[in-house]
Amino acid sequence: MADDKRKLANGKDFIDFQTDPSRYRHWKLSIDGDVATLAMDVDENAGLYEGYLLKLNSYDLGVDIELADALMRLRFEHPNVKVVLLRSAKDRVFCAGANIRMLAGSEHPHKVNFCKFTNETRNSMEDASENSGQRFIAVINGTAAGGGYELALATDYIMMIDDGSTAVSLPEVPLLAVLPGTGGLTRVVDKRRVRRDHADVFCTIEEGIKGRRAVQWRLIDDLVSPSKLEEQVKATAGDMATKSSRKGPSEGVKLLPVERTFRPDGIDYGYVKVDIDAAQRVATIVIRSPEAPSTADIEKQGSRFWPLQTARELDDAILHLRNNAYEIGTLVFKTDGSPACVRAYDEFLDAHSDHWLVHEIRHYWKRVLKRVDVTSRTLVTLIEPGSCFVGTLAELVFAADRSYMLLGQMQGDNRPAAKLELTRANFGVYRMSHGLTRLQTRFLGDSDKLVDLEKEIGRELDANEAETLGLVTFSLDDIDWDNEVRVFIEERTSFSPDGLTGLEANLRFAGPETMESKIFARLTAWQNWIFQRPNAVGEQGALRLYGTGQRPAYDMRRV
Amino acid sequence: MADDKRKLANGKDFIDFQTDPSRYRHWKLSIDGDVATLAMDVDENAGLYEGYLLKLNSYDLGVDIELADALMRLRFEHPNVKVVLLRSAKDRVFCAGANIRMLAGSEHPHKVNFCKFTNETRNSMEDASENSGQRFIAVINGTAAGGGYELALATDYIMMIDDGSTAVSLPEVPLLAVLPGTGGLTRVVDKRRVRRDHADVFCTIEEGIKGRRAVQWRLIDDLVSPSKLEEQVKATAGDMATKSSRKGPSEGVKLLPVERTFRPDGIDYGYVKVDIDAAQRVATIVIRSPEAPSTADIEKQGSRFWPLQTARELDDAILHLRNNAYEIGTLVFKTDGSPACVRAYDEFLDAHSDHWLVHEIRHYWKRVLKRVDVTSRTLVTLIEPGSCFVGTLAELVFAADRSYMLLGQMQGDNRPAAKLELTRANFGVYRMSHGLTRLQTRFLGDSDKLVDLEKEIGRELDANEAETLGLVTFSLDDIDWDNEVRVFIEERTSFSPDGLTGLEANLRFAGPETMESKIFARLTAWQNWIFQRPNAVGEQGALRLYGTGQRPAYDMRRV
Repeated sequence: MADDKRKLANGKDFIDFQTDPSRYRHWKLSIDGDVATLAMDVDENAGLYEGYLLKLNSYDLGVDIELADALMRLRFEHPNVKVVLLRSAKDRVFCAGANIRMLAGSEHPHKVNFCKFTNETRNSMEDASENSGQRFIAVINGTAAGGGYELALATDYIMMIDDGSTAVSLPEVPLLAVLPGTGGLTRVVDKRRVRRDHADVFCTIEEGIKGRRAVQWRLIDDLVSPSKLEEQVKATAGDMATKSSRKGPSEGVKLLPVERTFRPDGIDYGYVKVDIDAAQRVATIVIRSPEAPSTADIEKQGSRFWPLQTARELDDAILHLRNNAYEIGTLVFKTDGSPACVRAYDEFLDAHSDHWLVHEIRHYWKRVLKRVDVTSRTLVTLIEPGSCFVGTLAELVFAADRSYMLLGQMQGDNRPAAKLELTRANFGVYRMSHGLTRLQTRFLGDSDKLVDLEKEIGRELDANEAETLGLVTFSLDDIDWDNEVRVFIEERTSFSPDGLTGLEANLRFAGPETMESKIFARLTAWQNWIFQRPNAVGEQGALRLYGTGQRPAYDMRRV
Repeated sequence: MADDKRKLANGKDFIDFQTDPSRYRHWKLSIDGDVATLAMDVDENAGLYEGYLLKLNSYDLGVDIELADALMRLRFEHPNVKVVLLRSAKDRVFCAGANIRMLAGSEHPHKVNFCKFTNETRNSMEDASENSGQRFIAVINGTAAGGGYELALATDYIMMIDDGSTAVSLPEVPLLAVLPGTGGLTRVVDKRRVRRDHADVFCTIEEGIKGRRAVQWRLIDDLVSPSKLEEQVKATAGDMATKSSRKGPSEGVKLLPVERTFRPDGIDYGYVKVDIDAAQRVATIVIRSPEAPSTADIEKQGSRFWPLQTARELDDAILHLRNNAYEIGTLVFKTDGSPACVRAYDEFLDAHSDHWLVHEIRHYWKRVLKRVDVTSRTLVTLIEPGSCFVGTLAELVFAADRSYMLLGQMQGDNRPAAKLELTRANFGVYRMSHGLTRLQTRFLGDSDKLVDLEKEIGRELDANEAETLGLVTFSLDDIDWDNEVRVFIEERTSFSPDGLTGLEANLRFAGPETMESKIFARLTAWQNWIFQRPNAVGEQGALRLYGTGQRPAYDMRRV
């Protein structure tokens, strides 16, 4: 599980994406009025796996899980925080990037999924800035190499100490023969608009760029002398806080631990249930709604409020499967419960969209659904009697590579025939990474179709109607259902997992690209290629030999 | 050379990109008024390499070189052709796609570069349609599998015979564990706007989709009964011809053979010279201008007209290096000649942009420059005394990963100091695959800068000015020149070729993506990854075992 080549530290047998500040080993979160400080202080002895030390604030997936948790808490638990200072608690070191020994010793699936998660975490910083007015400032006090500089690139403003030696760098290509794996190349040219030839120079200089040239080339925003640093940080943070649109209450909602029970063949959460069929290589994820909605005093309900609790559970389930169960090739989504209840929640969220907590919950659902989109597993949605695919949950129908909907009832089953129902949430709330909604992507360029579909909001669509409207792939009656679905899943899991990953990554994102989607498409795909190439990972490859004093031997042919 | 694993057929020692209709082995080009027919009739015994037969109109790079040649001639030699019928001369077979045995036996660099060239060829069909009103109709009379259907996808209109058995298919994932490599996935969802779940079904059904479902899912445009096919093809072609904007004369210009002499260390063309330094792994490409422009009677000058001849020579040089000299990691661009002459040509082309031949020449230069952009070699431009980097040729400065410009004169050299000069051609004529000009990409989002630069049109900029304006990376005086340039190139060629390929592919295309750029980025990068994965190319991989009757053994872990 997780990585066949390495052993998880402390006898753990899976990677756990749940944590909380009391358990952090690598980050310190402190709040001072409307300014938070997120200080990186990596404990080199607390690596996720055995076999390496996390020196110089280098990170592994465990470090990033804490960062992702802190970012979630900043949005939900600290709605008054307007500015987050991303700093290092270590002297003369900001962050040395992803730990090389960890990377060199990891199997391909772990490397790829490590990069995917760290990308999602950095995107979530930008999401907080863009959508919640929570602005980020990186304060670079020393070495900011590779992933360390990429961390800074995800912030809104990069300050660097002018001590004559501190530089920013992306030394991956010259040193390790791989690419910066966390969006660095894309952010340098697309976000910071560093000129491409400057970027070329920057990305091939091991020692990086310091001083005024770093400002001139737009690699950083501000260069500050050591004696003025604290004062300047304070002034910049204060200025940003003044300009922030954020106006949450001083107290947020506590994110209680996600409760779950692991079974040998699955996981039980409160509203989410995962059943794993190891022989078939399928995981079925069932999302349950309550009988009736509970929308009173949502701040008091806090993380137990159904939309929030369910999103957190689904998020954890996806991450668990992605990182701990590579052999599971297909995720089947189902729902179980009351369509009226799900509709009521969607309507409540829509009616209170300017409530800070509702705002955060919807953006969180957006991020969870985006995580689903970039999950390299076949995604199937089965819409059966007793289900509640309404609005927000119907996004899982549109996120799926295919969906099957049962016509009428199942023999010997009294539950009502399956319905599919659109709400306003399907028309703009949950945008994919490339900027379109899932329905816009599904009906690319056909705006008439979208106008027609909006008229269907609130109508319970049976399987025939849903198929005619193009909302599901196939409708089947109960005579064909079991057989068709079984044959499809069996066939699917017989194909090459790599072929499917490539296929799905290309078919899911029709239409435009954004900086975010470019990171997952262009950059990630090239990095995955390089992560397979002998020049990086072979016996004589640079990633393998780094730190041994031996020089890598390259096959010099250009592909 | 070309491919270490295979031997080129007929004792050839390099892949030749030059051909002409009298030498075609696989295509028949015929013209009837304003409708041309390009009939595929692959000679199975005339493969580019030894060791496979090109059965069922399957193709290898040699087949595609002829297609690319025919498409060029249709634009230059047949300016009156408004519609091109893409057909098969074989019974019940349209095209079976890329030859699997060729692919299975090819080394990685050949596979990748084969796909790159076939992509460029299909893009050139779409370019002819969009920019020259030369519309394409695919007439599918039988098997159109994989690359065969992808060929049809590059046309404007797909007709298919309704004979009860003919289908279109993309069976790569289920059969071969690779992706359709010639834009198929992108064109299915982005161009034809096939719904993503339908596309998922389509791309996983080996036998493909036929009959009315193919129309309903938008995979084809027209389904025609066998008895009506010829009549319907004629009517559709006639209708398209009527609507075409193309209005070229009945006679075009003959594309004479590109004259070149191969030396052990280079190639001499008329205006282009390639010098290969095998030890340094560098090829220097020098483009020479005449002393004075010759712009009288350009149709009579035909393919000897300097802008056209130079573009063809540069195109051939790039293709030669790309496909025959993998070990060359760096392309250095230089020019030699008269800035006034190059300026005069640019001004002439600009003043006569509505002349059909000028129009074609400029679009051809655009395509050649795009070929440079996607060439996975480090691109460097050196701007030295005696050079003529003006307008069109200055695009090579902006296409380069880096450029160096010499300040003043070289000791002992009387040639005038280097100048760089912009013309109107730099502001919209030569768009990159992602839709922006190279200057727009260079100064992404800074429209003021572009306004300022337009004011510089016609000014001879010295090295200091060019550097200050951001048009070159570095200006150096003659004391530093040799050493700096040498150190840069030596350092560059010491890096991992794969790392550089990924780096350059990510830094060169800041900004938006188009369907075309998505094909080269998202799709190609994923395909390259898959082309490295054991599930496709390993001993037990699907591509290796195809046709042996053995089933592939997959590592079932999802990455």
